[in-house]
Amino acid sequence: MTAIGIIGSAGRMGQAIAAIVPDLGATIAGAVDSGGDRVQLAHDADVLVDFTAPSALEANLAAARLARTPIVVGTTGLSATHHVMIDAAAEEVAVLQTGTTSLGVTLLARLVREAAERLGPEWDIEIVEMHHRHKVDAPSGTAFLLGEAAAAGRGTTLADTAVIGRAGLTGARAEETIGFSSLRGGTVAGDHTVFFAGPGERLELAHRAESREIFARGAVTAALWLAGKPAGRYRMADVLDL
Amino acid sequence: MTAIGIIGSAGRMGQAIAAIVPDLGATIAGAVDSGGDRVQLAHDADVLVDFTAPSALEANLAAARLARTPIVVGTTGLSATHHVMIDAAAEEVAVLQTGTTSLGVTLLARLVREAAERLGPEWDIEIVEMHHRHKVDAPSGTAFLLGEAAAAGRGTTLADTAVIGRAGLTGARAEETIGFSSLRGGTVAGDHTVFFAGPGERLELAHRAESREIFARGAVTAALWLAGKPAGRYRMADVLDL
Amino acid sequence: MTAIGIIGSAGRMGQAIAAIVPDLGATIAGAVDSGGDRVQLAHDADVLVDFTAPSALEANLAAARLARTPIVVGTTGLSATHHVMIDAAAEEVAVLQTGTTSLGVTLLARLVREAAERLGPEWDIEIVEMHHRHKVDAPSGTAFLLGEAAAAGRGTTLADTAVIGRAGLTGARAEETIGFSSLRGGTVAGDHTVFFAGPGERLELAHRAESREIFARGAVTAALWLAGKPAGRYRMADVLDL
Amino acid sequence: MTAIGIIGSAGRMGQAIAAIVPDLGATIAGAVDSGGDRVQLAHDADVLVDFTAPSALEANLAAARLARTPIVVGTTGLSATHHVMIDAAAEEVAVLQTGTTSLGVTLLARLVREAAERLGPEWDIEIVEMHHRHKVDAPSGTAFLLGEAAAAGRGTTLADTAVIGRAGLTGARAEETIGFSSLRGGTVAGDHTVFFAGPGERLELAHRAESREIFARGAVTAALWLAGKPAGRYRMADVLDL
Repeated sequence: MTAIGIIGSAGRMGQAIAAIVPDLGATIAGAVDSGGDRVQLAHDADVLVDFTAPSALEANLAAARLARTPIVVGTTGLSATHHVMIDAAAEEVAVLQTGTTSLGVTLLARLVREAAERLGPEWDIEIVEMHHRHKVDAPSGTAFLLGEAAAAGRGTTLADTAVIGRAGLTGARAEETIGFSSLRGGTVAGDHTVFFAGPGERLELAHRAESREIFARGAVTAALWLAGKPAGRYRMADVLDL
Repeated sequence: MTAIGIIGSAGRMGQAIAAIVPDLGATIAGAVDSGGDRVQLAHDADVLVDFTAPSALEANLAAARLARTPIVVGTTGLSATHHVMIDAAAEEVAVLQTGTTSLGVTLLARLVREAAERLGPEWDIEIVEMHHRHKVDAPSGTAFLLGEAAAAGRGTTLADTAVIGRAGLTGARAEETIGFSSLRGGTVAGDHTVFFAGPGERLELAHRAESREIFARGAVTAALWLAGKPAGRYRMADVLDL
Repeated sequence: MTAIGIIGSAGRMGQAIAAIVPDLGATIAGAVDSGGDRVQLAHDADVLVDFTAPSALEANLAAARLARTPIVVGTTGLSATHHVMIDAAAEEVAVLQTGTTSLGVTLLARLVREAAERLGPEWDIEIVEMHHRHKVDAPSGTAFLLGEAAAAGRGTTLADTAVIGRAGLTGARAEETIGFSSLRGGTVAGDHTVFFAGPGERLELAHRAESREIFARGAVTAALWLAGKPAGRYRMADVLDL
Repeated sequence: MTAIGIIGSAGRMGQAIAAIVPDLGATIAGAVDSGGDRVQLAHDADVLVDFTAPSALEANLAAARLARTPIVVGTTGLSATHHVMIDAAAEEVAVLQTGTTSLGVTLLARLVREAAERLGPEWDIEIVEMHHRHKVDAPSGTAFLLGEAAAAGRGTTLADTAVIGRAGLTGARAEETIGFSSLRGGTVAGDHTVFFAGPGERLELAHRAESREIFARGAVTAALWLAGKPAGRYRMADVLDL
């Protein structure tokens, strides 16, 4: 049985993962939080899952490299510097970094990219997401992931096109921009909709998560797939063979 | 037949109103834009409709007072100072100021107020609107109108509770706040949704306008109702007997 | 502490209620299924909750009357005959019958009734609901409850106006009808939307349940409220003081 | 300039097409309704567009064949027999038959097919559509078109899987079925949503038409593309190079 090491055991995702591991035919090698010994955990586990904070990424990757243990990185809010760290680690160990562990979101990103490729610039792209009242950042990592898929479909990047949180005298919409809106409230596990608004018609491509359990389930599925893989950088789409 | 004077003849609403007046059994007394003679128009008309800019409000109200001609003010983006002007004018002439001329939106505002009154602070309120790519301000006047209805239902004001366009490290949602999000794209005439997100369940109260024609139709309906009314400040809800 | 007797212990709702009772400061007096002794249970409990099948209603009410124990009836699919039984039982014991135990749905029904009262017959009413793949009847009890609220707002009844599951050559929509559509799939806990479609605009009033737990929570809340009440027929709106 | 012959001039689509032809740089060769001479029209036109009734299809195709004039068939409600007629005609003349002339719907059908291919049978498929109160059949041609795309993605056919208009004691959802629901009301130009409901999450892929004008615009775009093409059977996706 594959032994999974959980980094970020005190967080919501860490706890949800611990709860679901037995259902998926795996065992827990151990679980650490900010103060714990990741290196020992990396030695004890067949694969690590990391849902912590960007500031912890460097140490988490170092432990994975040292022990040659594959690692699933689900932490959100990563910068370009963090992606450079991941690329470096992926030369020595298998790293699967993803903004989402949901099967539905991963497929949605693919459909969004395809729609953006096919539809011309007269179709405006807007992304709206809703999460529970406790979420502390906006937009969500998944919203950015969908925005990147849309930008890639159009041959641009989010850095050039993202407009986040319109307010005040904005002027008319600039062509080729991608808008982001974030709603917060209640206990919403995570809803995302990508709008393509053209002349006289609209496409709306949406995903709704009913509970956070699907993300834990996806994370463990990804970890089981990644255990034993050679060094390299992997994506959730690889797990799903998309 | 009631003769309607249009102020703001070059704008989208002014043109839509001109097109629909004959269908509703009225006539056009005249139509002026920024450079036109409003005082003469006010004398010629039984009722004025004003869809211009906040900066033109003072002169428009002055013309209405001088001629004792009732006026429908549909201009959006008004400040507290503008509302003081309207109150002053309403002592001498009938003024109906409204953030929307839609029957559906006016009813929605009433339902939103009632829901906000009944649901406790564990139900978070979020308002999202979508309009065409040419709209230059955010949120829409209608979104603010719905937000004011929600705030009134809770015994607060938007000034104390509005959060517009979340972005970045926002922290957890502050209790009693009302969030606003604005989407822009394509040719969308105007969609608004008010979310009440509680523990484990959500209410979503929405309005969709299929075309701008409904606003023109509502503006003329309001003008026909206002013609001949005594001095005072009126609301769209009065027209609809809500 | 109030002791709750559960009738229908093997069903989804019965199990969810049993799981949540301790969280709400109550105890379980006992739980029976089809073969169990309801009369003994009714004597042991301060209040009964019944989520079974229409065919079991008569025996369940008889037990409540015999023991003079108030009863919450959440069973759906009741006929006019069942409502006559309930009225008869309510002369001797407190009976709260409801098509939903959700706070949000109960408020939604009120808003739907009000909207139907205000909007004329040129606004067509349609109700669509979605539930998980295991649900065996359509439309849902909650959809009928919302439809009854809409019909009452218009001064009609569902018996005269309901159109369920359009298919084939239906002809143009008959005025004053109320349409029902039922979607089934996945693990959806329960979504309902009431559309008011008028000339050029639409109102959409919706409720989304994130999990079945809210219904169990509402059922226990209703039971705690009903315990000790005098004979009579009560509604969920009474619990919520709507 | 391409000369377009309109068959079905009295219908809503025929009138909308006539109104938009000049905007798209074409001319109207003529327009006939049920009693008119289609053969003469076919001789006068470079391409025909047919939005009539299934019963008129045979005569319309015969006129196209006789004059060797390409024909766009947008009539809905066709049976297998009608498709055999179209295949036969397509051996002698260019025929583009489509359940929709919307760019957005055509792309949506492609995305739906792809999603159905990728998602296993634990994801249930449901299609819901809404149209104005005057529509006389259900489900819409576009709903069937989307259902066929979903069925093709799964390697089945609608004939084997369609469930239209659930009502009453349906039993649990049968695996691999595709459900259809039809809402009617107001002036809705046409909304369609395809749900993929899986364990704990949902995809919702939707299209909204703001007015019927987009269908007229798409029909003329298709006609201009078809004029001069060799015999054969074409699809809307060919026009859009999907």
